[in-house]
Amino acid sequence: MRILFVGDVFGRPGRTMVSEYVPKLRKKYKPQMTIINGENAASGKGITEKIYKGFLEAGAQVVTLGNHAWARREIFTFIDDAKKLVRPLNYPEGTPGQGVVSVNINGQEVVVINAMGRTFLMDIDDPFRAVKREVELAKKRTPFVFVDFHAEVTSEKQAMGWYLDGMASAVIGTHTHVQTADERILPGGTAYLSDVGMTGPYDGILGVDRELILDKFLTALPTRFEVADGRTQLSAVIIDLDDTTGKAKSIKRILINDDHPFYE
Amino acid sequence: MRILFVGDVFGRPGRTMVSEYVPKLRKKYKPQMTIINGENAASGKGITEKIYKGFLEAGAQVVTLGNHAWARREIFTFIDDAKKLVRPLNYPEGTPGQGVVSVNINGQEVVVINAMGRTFLMDIDDPFRAVKREVELAKKRTPFVFVDFHAEVTSEKQAMGWYLDGMASAVIGTHTHVQTADERILPGGTAYLSDVGMTGPYDGILGVDRELILDKFLTALPTRFEVADGRTQLSAVIIDLDDTTGKAKSIKRILINDDHPFYE
Amino acid sequence: MRILFVGDVFGRPGRTMVSEYVPKLRKKYKPQMTIINGENAASGKGITEKIYKGFLEAGAQVVTLGNHAWARREIFTFIDDAKKLVRPLNYPEGTPGQGVVSVNINGQEVVVINAMGRTFLMDIDDPFRAVKREVELAKKRTPFVFVDFHAEVTSEKQAMGWYLDGMASAVIGTHTHVQTADERILPGGTAYLSDVGMTGPYDGILGVDRELILDKFLTALPTRFEVADGRTQLSAVIIDLDDTTGKAKSIKRILINDDHPFYE
Amino acid sequence: MRILFVGDVFGRPGRTMVSEYVPKLRKKYKPQMTIINGENAASGKGITEKIYKGFLEAGAQVVTLGNHAWARREIFTFIDDAKKLVRPLNYPEGTPGQGVVSVNINGQEVVVINAMGRTFLMDIDDPFRAVKREVELAKKRTPFVFVDFHAEVTSEKQAMGWYLDGMASAVIGTHTHVQTADERILPGGTAYLSDVGMTGPYDGILGVDRELILDKFLTALPTRFEVADGRTQLSAVIIDLDDTTGKAKSIKRILINDDHPFYE
Ligand SMILES: [Fe+2]
Ligand SMILES: [Fe+2]
Ligand SMILES: [Fe+2]
Ligand SMILES: [Fe+2]
Ligand SMILES: [Fe+2]
Ligand SMILES: [Fe+2]
Ligand SMILES: [Fe+2]
Ligand SMILES: [Fe+2]
Repeated sequence: MRILFVGDVFGRPGRTMVSEYVPKLRKKYKPQMTIINGENAASGKGITEKIYKGFLEAGAQVVTLGNHAWARREIFTFIDDAKKLVRPLNYPEGTPGQGVVSVNINGQEVVVINAMGRTFLMDIDDPFRAVKREVELAKKRTPFVFVDFHAEVTSEKQAMGWYLDGMASAVIGTHTHVQTADERILPGGTAYLSDVGMTGPYDGILGVDRELILDKFLTALPTRFEVADGRTQLSAVIIDLDDTTGKAKSIKRILINDDHPFYE
Repeated sequence: MRILFVGDVFGRPGRTMVSEYVPKLRKKYKPQMTIINGENAASGKGITEKIYKGFLEAGAQVVTLGNHAWARREIFTFIDDAKKLVRPLNYPEGTPGQGVVSVNINGQEVVVINAMGRTFLMDIDDPFRAVKREVELAKKRTPFVFVDFHAEVTSEKQAMGWYLDGMASAVIGTHTHVQTADERILPGGTAYLSDVGMTGPYDGILGVDRELILDKFLTALPTRFEVADGRTQLSAVIIDLDDTTGKAKSIKRILINDDHPFYE
Repeated sequence: MRILFVGDVFGRPGRTMVSEYVPKLRKKYKPQMTIINGENAASGKGITEKIYKGFLEAGAQVVTLGNHAWARREIFTFIDDAKKLVRPLNYPEGTPGQGVVSVNINGQEVVVINAMGRTFLMDIDDPFRAVKREVELAKKRTPFVFVDFHAEVTSEKQAMGWYLDGMASAVIGTHTHVQTADERILPGGTAYLSDVGMTGPYDGILGVDRELILDKFLTALPTRFEVADGRTQLSAVIIDLDDTTGKAKSIKRILINDDHPFYE
Repeated sequence: MRILFVGDVFGRPGRTMVSEYVPKLRKKYKPQMTIINGENAASGKGITEKIYKGFLEAGAQVVTLGNHAWARREIFTFIDDAKKLVRPLNYPEGTPGQGVVSVNINGQEVVVINAMGRTFLMDIDDPFRAVKREVELAKKRTPFVFVDFHAEVTSEKQAMGWYLDGMASAVIGTHTHVQTADERILPGGTAYLSDVGMTGPYDGILGVDRELILDKFLTALPTRFEVADGRTQLSAVIIDLDDTTGKAKSIKRILINDDHPFYE
């Protein structure tokens, strides 16, 4: 089982990169499954139904989210019907949508969990216990469990990786919009990467027009928020899982931008 | 001008990696200058005079610090005499030590600045204005200015990179203990990497025994702090600067661990 | 039912005030029940078994805690046997001690709940749902339910007050060490006060030697922690509950210090 | 010199309280000077020129601000011409408006400084050094210096009070929207109160519709922001300064609401 996971797609520049490169990546790497984090897909914050469906059409089987999931109020109108859309599991009981999605990939069940860290982020339920519970449930049915852990700090991310080592097939971080270089297979067989990075503007700051963010740091005044224009990037990771055990056999980062051109 | 910069050396495991690999890296890459971030060098927090001197003997010309600089009270007894030790510049006026160090490398002056971000970190002076002021002063004398920006969040780090683009030779992040994969040369000629990563335990969480950190997340109770044992890693970056302009010509990440063996 | 609640007792100065004034307050106001927050009772952080028992001897029926509950490791040796000691309810499952205590006051059951806010404090379980669940359970047996809500920000405290209005007899805040002046009976009959304040040094900062705290703000360096000496204060609140309905009939703040002398 | 200071005026309910009670308070207490914190005056966030001028017409000589100063972009069009409007001093150099205002009260100069804390608030310049510098400058001309310290945590507020004790005539806190009961005259002669409290809705949470805030705590989802309707309150403080030394002679809290009716 080979899984392609594309990190936080940011606004139109990110969606354009998905349209252009996901087909090429699928052609080159032939993943059985594609997952896209879409929390920033609509103008840099949130997602619309149209964009969600566009990701499925572009080849994704599942779309994950994060703290920005709710930025566009449209989400509340379609999330409960969006069967392949997964929002952080550890929002409190009663939250619309679902934290776990199960898909059938060539007759095999793959479970995708989206969870969110709390440090410097949101006061929500304990992600560790919540994810463990769902991973254990999933493991009764299938060896293939993928976790997108949306979190700010490296300690919480590494903790989740080690916590699920040997239980989840992969624990891949999102949210910081910067790809980390610490991809590895933990001793128990779990593929781990602290952050897969962002797909969108290459010359902004986390995707946002960089002058606006610089102004924020320099003035401490409220600033506008605008998707940066110009050059673009795609951040992703490819994970190979053992078809019997679900354990990771390899993990490979992908970065496409002017400094790292894509070769077909 | 080629500079080797080794990321946050953590406890004895980190110091052992420095002793073993810095000579090998210097032999292989022949940098004119080596800089080591030593904020975690003494048992994971702080630095002692003996360790500082050990780094100089191991080949470093400058040792940088961060928020943990002050963890060992011994620092206050030697920092003002430690001419090659640089602590974050933007601590308030009157702070012991210095935020800028100038060294002579084969007749060329190289200025090393250590600064610290504020987001989710410390309430100190504005790092942007403070660094800019020092970079401008330094640029009157030399084109070679290296900045170790010790910060938590990717937005503040990228903002510093872009803010100094074309002014500093390199802006390299430290503090998260996870190497990022976003090394690049910004359009103005500044080498940039969000975080160089940590040098120390490979199987802990940020260097700390992972059971202790997991306990912290699972219980929210106070926990002990112990350097993890077992396998180790080294995180570094090599930057080539144009000998005339000081602009970066290349930036290369280095990661040495069981999954990324070192080849001489 | 009249309840006297004494706010965060800080170190020896606080314990001395308890010894001296709790008897006088009991004589003057004749409360049927006394509750003491003791999270800072041992040298400003944590509590010992001896101090806990001393509070019971001084007339308290229940001792509440907060984020500093665990500062002295001795707590883990006696908390499970301390039947009148209550720590924040919404620590995760498996935490030693109890979040709810039930006492018999002249044949009437009074339930005391200690809970903790999350904003700028700890990443623990949702205090709102946790407290509501326990209040509902308690209300099946008794109309008298007292909540010590240990939290940092006024928004979370007021939210808890309104959330429990008509369900709890009283929601009294602790933790900021400064008494607020917003005591009131909410429309549903719940006595509310954002913070009862601290019992201990009068001329420190939150109880700590003020030069040390000033140094912390002025230098951003690590500082020692010492209980302030000199003049002292006691902060408390007295609540009258209707004997049948458990609803609050009155709430009165008490502040004893050199500027507010106690009259017998 | 008697000064009336009215705490954070919140939306229309707050402005109505100002219109109704500031004249009554001025008639009853006969202050020579009235200061109003107006950071929440326009719909709960920010201020408009019309509201600012309305406060002056209602009898204020100076209007102070806080973190919400910039919420309405209109502020940037008039702040530089608003001679009696003072925003937090310790925003970085280049910030529009002024952090210190000097007014002539019956031939006496009174200096009003607005400053802002950093803990859990904004990454701006050190308020301690900034305020001290301005207080020292002011003291060369006049003994009357009033400081509105807009801050979140009690430790930073108390620290500022003690830091300026004997230098400023008064250090009065704002921002938490809850009046504290710790008014006192510090040993050096500075009147101190951790927070004067909010002027506006009495049955909301900090002024906001309480259901919206409760939803925020219960769901962790983005919520609308609406000024609460219904009953209202006014929070203020009256300080008497010695006409020769500028030292505080008395400090008296004022709270007007249905539970604390105003008597003429
Ligand atoms: Fe994102
Ligand atoms: Fe995010
Ligand atoms: Fe570090
Ligand atoms: Fe650090
Ligand atoms: Fe306390
Ligand atoms: Fe506390
Ligand atoms: Fe306010
Ligand atoms: Fe405010």
